[in-house]
Amino acid sequence: MALIVQKYGGSSVADAEKITKVARRIARTKNQGNQVVVVVSAMGDTTDELIELAYRISETPDNRELDVLLSTGEVVSSTLLAMALHHMGYPAISLSGAQAGIRTDSVYNRARILKVESRRVVKELERGNIVIVAGFQGITDEMDVTTLGRGGSDTTAVALAASLGAEVCQIYTDVEGVYDADPRLVPEARPLAEMGYEEMLELASYGANVLHPRAVELGELFNVPILVASSFTEKPGTLIHGGVSMEVREKVRGIAHNLDVAKITVIGVPDCPGIAASIFEPLARAGISVDTIVQNASIEKVTDLTFTVTTSQLSRAMEVVKPIAGSIGARDCVSDATLGTVSIIGTGMQNTPGYAARMFNALSEKGVNIQLITTSEVRITCIITEAKVKDAVRALHHAFEIEIEG
Amino acid sequence: MALIVQKYGGSSVADAEKITKVARRIARTKNQGNQVVVVVSAMGDTTDELIELAYRISETPDNRELDVLLSTGEVVSSTLLAMALHHMGYPAISLSGAQAGIRTDSVYNRARILKVESRRVVKELERGNIVIVAGFQGITDEMDVTTLGRGGSDTTAVALAASLGAEVCQIYTDVEGVYDADPRLVPEARPLAEMGYEEMLELASYGANVLHPRAVELGELFNVPILVASSFTEKPGTLIHGGVSMEVREKVRGIAHNLDVAKITVIGVPDCPGIAASIFEPLARAGISVDTIVQNASIEKVTDLTFTVTTSQLSRAMEVVKPIAGSIGARDCVSDATLGTVSIIGTGMQNTPGYAARMFNALSEKGVNIQLITTSEVRITCIITEAKVKDAVRALHHAFEIEIEG
Repeated sequence: MALIVQKYGGSSVADAEKITKVARRIARTKNQGNQVVVVVSAMGDTTDELIELAYRISETPDNRELDVLLSTGEVVSSTLLAMALHHMGYPAISLSGAQAGIRTDSVYNRARILKVESRRVVKELERGNIVIVAGFQGITDEMDVTTLGRGGSDTTAVALAASLGAEVCQIYTDVEGVYDADPRLVPEARPLAEMGYEEMLELASYGANVLHPRAVELGELFNVPILVASSFTEKPGTLIHGGVSMEVREKVRGIAHNLDVAKITVIGVPDCPGIAASIFEPLARAGISVDTIVQNASIEKVTDLTFTVTTSQLSRAMEVVKPIAGSIGARDCVSDATLGTVSIIGTGMQNTPGYAARMFNALSEKGVNIQLITTSEVRITCIITEAKVKDAVRALHHAFEIEIEG
Repeated sequence: MALIVQKYGGSSVADAEKITKVARRIARTKNQGNQVVVVVSAMGDTTDELIELAYRISETPDNRELDVLLSTGEVVSSTLLAMALHHMGYPAISLSGAQAGIRTDSVYNRARILKVESRRVVKELERGNIVIVAGFQGITDEMDVTTLGRGGSDTTAVALAASLGAEVCQIYTDVEGVYDADPRLVPEARPLAEMGYEEMLELASYGANVLHPRAVELGELFNVPILVASSFTEKPGTLIHGGVSMEVREKVRGIAHNLDVAKITVIGVPDCPGIAASIFEPLARAGISVDTIVQNASIEKVTDLTFTVTTSQLSRAMEVVKPIAGSIGARDCVSDATLGTVSIIGTGMQNTPGYAARMFNALSEKGVNIQLITTSEVRITCIITEAKVKDAVRALHHAFEIEIEG
């Protein structure tokens, strides 16, 4: 008897009818002789509606209270899903994050899971129950409710799968799996049958929103196979696991892109120790994540420092950086909010030279100018103007003739 | 520094604006130098909406799951109220029933409070917080959420007040206190300044919906003064406490009525031991509460047995009773769904004769026919036809010339 963890997103449980459909899918998994643990997100737009309600009361709602408020969304959907299973004659029980033993730190709104105390879940499985766990939430040592931030329910599911030693963690969503490029941009894009954790991590981090990087990291750490599939179709989906890298024939596995990119350049910075820290420490304190950082080669002890942030954080970042630029004697501080990234991703790339050159050529042929380049072992990312992202993704998908296995 | 427990009902926190108004009232109590614990119901019609959602999934939703689902309504309103207080600059924290230590039995949908473990509430008060507790809910020893059934939030408030040794438990609602008769029927009806627990218990049990009998019982048991007042006005309200009986000049303190009354008569029952049990045990098992029971004097070993149930439970009660009536050799079994009750209530009545006669006279003068009579030490109730209830209440209010003190 295998243990399977399934996660259903908000769009899969948006109304009573969809909840009943999800219950049928769960029942089928149970009928196949499996023990089933289900992690569920809040129904449809519930979370956004609760946030709106909070902001009608206060422009700066308290983080602790906001977490308690938001956590009710997943509790509601988990009870309704349990009721739907009962209605079909299946034993089921809903558990809150607290009851399921999701123990977190006390960083409200974006808590990290410290451990999973799965006694109650195990007990309910032994009683024959399908266990429905409210995703996105946990509890601190003080027994205060926290939420896990973006990708929270995916993370709950993978953490539970790891803790319970599940055979697979199935993430059900409204798309058919992980595509080799965004199908809205590339009509020929197709779902991948399988992916390695590292590739998936890069793809998730650089634009594919189907699965949150946190969940992928956790899956890699505990070697949990993750299946990403549609809750609306019977398509096989994409299996993310550790045994795939050696077998992939194609080196470039996917094209990621991101339109939410802005660039800040501090011009004429005196090139002396501590300057970088004097800029990036205040940004970190202000909660602004900096992605790429590039410092041009120093000429005559003066350098240009360029870094990227999300478009939504640009104005706050400029507020932080401008006074610092002045105080450290920089000549100017400029920004560009109309940027995007395109990335090619594939584990095989790390052992084979020439991928960067082929990427740059493909972009050049389409008249795409590259502003910044960053790389990891399994990824090459170019920062380009936002208006060219669509063309660039198509050109790269074509250039690397991505083949789908399986 | 006094400790005050306040409870706000669903209509008092129905939207963001009303929540802000309630926060102002709480802040004022805090400003007067008090420690404040607030118990809050779910916003407006939230509970009904959640029930509707559950029934869209299943006609027979599981009791445990229903309790978890419904409990989210009070969690939502408690967090929003805490946010509103933060917004005004007051330290506040919301606690679920579980966090506030409301420990109950495992009878879902209508759990009883076993004890209140108020450590966390006390700790938050000591930290200077206004503590907002989600009403209507508790937690079992297994850490499963329960709800307390009708009057649940009132009961939470009085239980917390008792456990914390609060100076007073203030129940804020949408009426100005406890009236000597229903003001919708009797325009001259006025709120009472004070009442004894027993009088209030009879009044609450026999038709005044302003405060649930459970909460009154608990208040009496632990001698917690309960103030019932409007959250929308500054009127003083009604104080229910133990020191009032000796001082009341008027003997009849209030007129209660109830339109939700139906009568079942089993005709020609053989008058032998065990017959009553054979009828009322199956009714109790079916969850049907029987109120008044009257058995006519036996003539020739045959008797008529009459009892009342709520109108909504009449058809189920008849389904239970009819086959039994047949099997015990009764001649027939008939029902009447168009009944009501009128009651006169007052602690002083128990020491003074003649109240029953005055009541029957007043009803007789208005042509009201009395079908059944029941009494307690502080109450006389007549069961009459529903169509005459309004006339009867007015006649009784006039006949006993109820005076309002204070």
